[in-house]
Amino acid sequence: MQTRTERIQKDIETLATFTATPGKGVTRSSYSKEDKLAKRYLVGEMEKLGLKIYEDSFGTLFGRKEGTLKDAPVVMFGSHYDSVVNGGAFDGVAGTVSALEVMRVLVENGHVNDYPLELIIMNAEEGETFGPSTGVTNSRAMMGTMTQEELDTVKNRFGQTKAEAMAAYGLTPDLKSAVRDPATIKNFIELHIEQGPVLDRERIEVGLIQYLAGIGRYKIRFYGKTADSTAPMTERKDALVAASGFITAFDEKIRALGPEVTGMVGRLDITPNSNQFVPEYVEGKIEIRTFTKEIVEKVDFKGMILGLLEEAGGRYGVDTELEEIKRIGYPNPTGPSIMAAENVERMERICDTLGYSHMRINNGTGHDSMIMTDFVDTNMLYVPSRNGGVSHCPEEWTDYESIKKGADVLLHLVMELGKDG
Amino acid sequence: MQTRTERIQKDIETLATFTATPGKGVTRSSYSKEDKLAKRYLVGEMEKLGLKIYEDSFGTLFGRKEGTLKDAPVVMFGSHYDSVVNGGAFDGVAGTVSALEVMRVLVENGHVNDYPLELIIMNAEEGETFGPSTGVTNSRAMMGTMTQEELDTVKNRFGQTKAEAMAAYGLTPDLKSAVRDPATIKNFIELHIEQGPVLDRERIEVGLIQYLAGIGRYKIRFYGKTADSTAPMTERKDALVAASGFITAFDEKIRALGPEVTGMVGRLDITPNSNQFVPEYVEGKIEIRTFTKEIVEKVDFKGMILGLLEEAGGRYGVDTELEEIKRIGYPNPTGPSIMAAENVERMERICDTLGYSHMRINNGTGHDSMIMTDFVDTNMLYVPSRNGGVSHCPEEWTDYESIKKGADVLLHLVMELGKDG
Repeated sequence: MQTRTERIQKDIETLATFTATPGKGVTRSSYSKEDKLAKRYLVGEMEKLGLKIYEDSFGTLFGRKEGTLKDAPVVMFGSHYDSVVNGGAFDGVAGTVSALEVMRVLVENGHVNDYPLELIIMNAEEGETFGPSTGVTNSRAMMGTMTQEELDTVKNRFGQTKAEAMAAYGLTPDLKSAVRDPATIKNFIELHIEQGPVLDRERIEVGLIQYLAGIGRYKIRFYGKTADSTAPMTERKDALVAASGFITAFDEKIRALGPEVTGMVGRLDITPNSNQFVPEYVEGKIEIRTFTKEIVEKVDFKGMILGLLEEAGGRYGVDTELEEIKRIGYPNPTGPSIMAAENVERMERICDTLGYSHMRINNGTGHDSMIMTDFVDTNMLYVPSRNGGVSHCPEEWTDYESIKKGADVLLHLVMELGKDG
Repeated sequence: MQTRTERIQKDIETLATFTATPGKGVTRSSYSKEDKLAKRYLVGEMEKLGLKIYEDSFGTLFGRKEGTLKDAPVVMFGSHYDSVVNGGAFDGVAGTVSALEVMRVLVENGHVNDYPLELIIMNAEEGETFGPSTGVTNSRAMMGTMTQEELDTVKNRFGQTKAEAMAAYGLTPDLKSAVRDPATIKNFIELHIEQGPVLDRERIEVGLIQYLAGIGRYKIRFYGKTADSTAPMTERKDALVAASGFITAFDEKIRALGPEVTGMVGRLDITPNSNQFVPEYVEGKIEIRTFTKEIVEKVDFKGMILGLLEEAGGRYGVDTELEEIKRIGYPNPTGPSIMAAENVERMERICDTLGYSHMRINNGTGHDSMIMTDFVDTNMLYVPSRNGGVSHCPEEWTDYESIKKGADVLLHLVMELGKDG
């Protein structure tokens, strides 16, 4: 059994017409008119397959194909269909359409699954609409980590809160009813474009995610005192020397923790940044990436940074400050999202059988799957992004044939996971 | 005996009319039409005093008043009269006009000096005309540190070399004949506006320079390798960590040298300077200031920096590079210019007698006096700059009454130094 490229292409091209910015990429903001048109199209395609369709109070669409086992947990697969402003036609949509095509192939082939299968189509994945830490809305609602506060406070570019925008669209978001018991989900699988250059550069057809590294972001600030370059060394409060002391000490600490974590100050802004004046103020940005849950539990990163700041600041007479960049609703700001290892191996075997080249890959940022890993056996697979991996712009591109290959892997994984024993 | 404010004001206001940019500050570039008009005015004023006027091959004007001692070294005092583009009316001119006014007072009072007195009016002090390290032309020519290479290579904004510009102006610069034996100069004294905020802020009327700190400038470069924020720590070549290691080590070394020197990295530019990517390239600027000649002789600053670069680069796997910012023609790139201490005390006594407040001050950048200190007993005095000390702009300002007070101190110092025994 195989998926068909031409149907995938048609779906993607059709969805791309539902944009608020024709000719300037896809702009399909959540709860917009274009969102509604896209959803109507997707529901129509699901109806053709005779799936049992239902929608939760956040607008997540489920298309269910029952199996031989009654009351069994489902194999769930899909992605989102909203886009950023002036984005591309593939982010989210590639996974949504692949999942839809997998259902088509299964239905038209009369495939008999034991566990129920559920196509899931989510919305409001892009953080952009309501601000950078407000994405992955529907998965968070489903897993019970969404809050009423977020619905009532974050606003889109038209000044509407999330709750207001959803109400205007016809949804009445209900936190309680939207929650789905993780025990009812056997697997969660998402196909996505890589949004990076690796697969295309390496000429690899399928990327298999082992984990999405956890991210911890912090701002560090050093408040010194400026002075002429002739000011006595003993009277100086040089913010850059203090920052430098911090940077080398932080590097050493992170290295000592071993391969489960990386960390750095990648950005540093100095004021006034002149050779003639003692640096008065330095602001830096720290990014910590974690690769195991153990390291996150073992290390108090925030406390570690605070300790090093105090040490460097004290040594050079410079006041310091730490700001943690919060990512609203994320279950653990620094923890990694670990994918089900046995399914990575399963997909490797499937790729080998189908003759598709594959590699394990561990980069990537926020996806609904990241939320799901904390509750459900989750897996992601990437298909290659062209044009250097650019995304969230009109130049975002993945060949339809590439998506079809990823969809084939998804198809066979779903069939295997849907089998009893 | 006192100088007269109204004459100082008239001289300054007259010279300010010789500008290529009326209404937009004073633009009197060396060897320009405006330069020629200013020079004609100054020569006219000297002629009125019956001074013995001569001009060297670089266009330096000398106005000599003989003393009772024959073939004795001279007490020389003056400044320059060229300006930057869209500069102010006081930089250089305040000192030139004060010296002229001192001669006027001495002549009209029939003052009898023992040592000969020479009013000196210099040109091409501003580095701007031919580039940042090409100023203090006339003092360098006089002290024999000017080179033919400089005359033939540095170019002004019209594409003329220094030699060509001088030739078009009517000068035939001759390195040999311009040299003046330092033994023929007993003292060199220059009054200048502070070009800084200190005197005005502290409400002090006269600033007495003890030394102009030596300046050594270097660029340091760190060539790392960028990578994603998930790249293993062991494989990184983080240019910012290496730079940080250098900065703290350099700070420590400089501190250990004691109060005769300061040093810092005041500027740091990081590429790509993103929290998500390992810093690939860092460029920094070092400024070293030295306050004694001993420290310059004792410490090999360049070697010290090279050693620290090698250490930091080696430790973090980052290539480093050092570039010394050469200042053409300066006798010693890092050495301080030490003023004659006994004359600082002399001026303090003069100020006390005249009832002018005074302080010792040690900041400032390039002046002709800086060149002279290496050959001749030299002294500088500052008068307060208003408007926060801004200079090289139309807002540059010093009250005429303030210049008069400085000129009074100059007058009495010249009288004392011109006396035999």
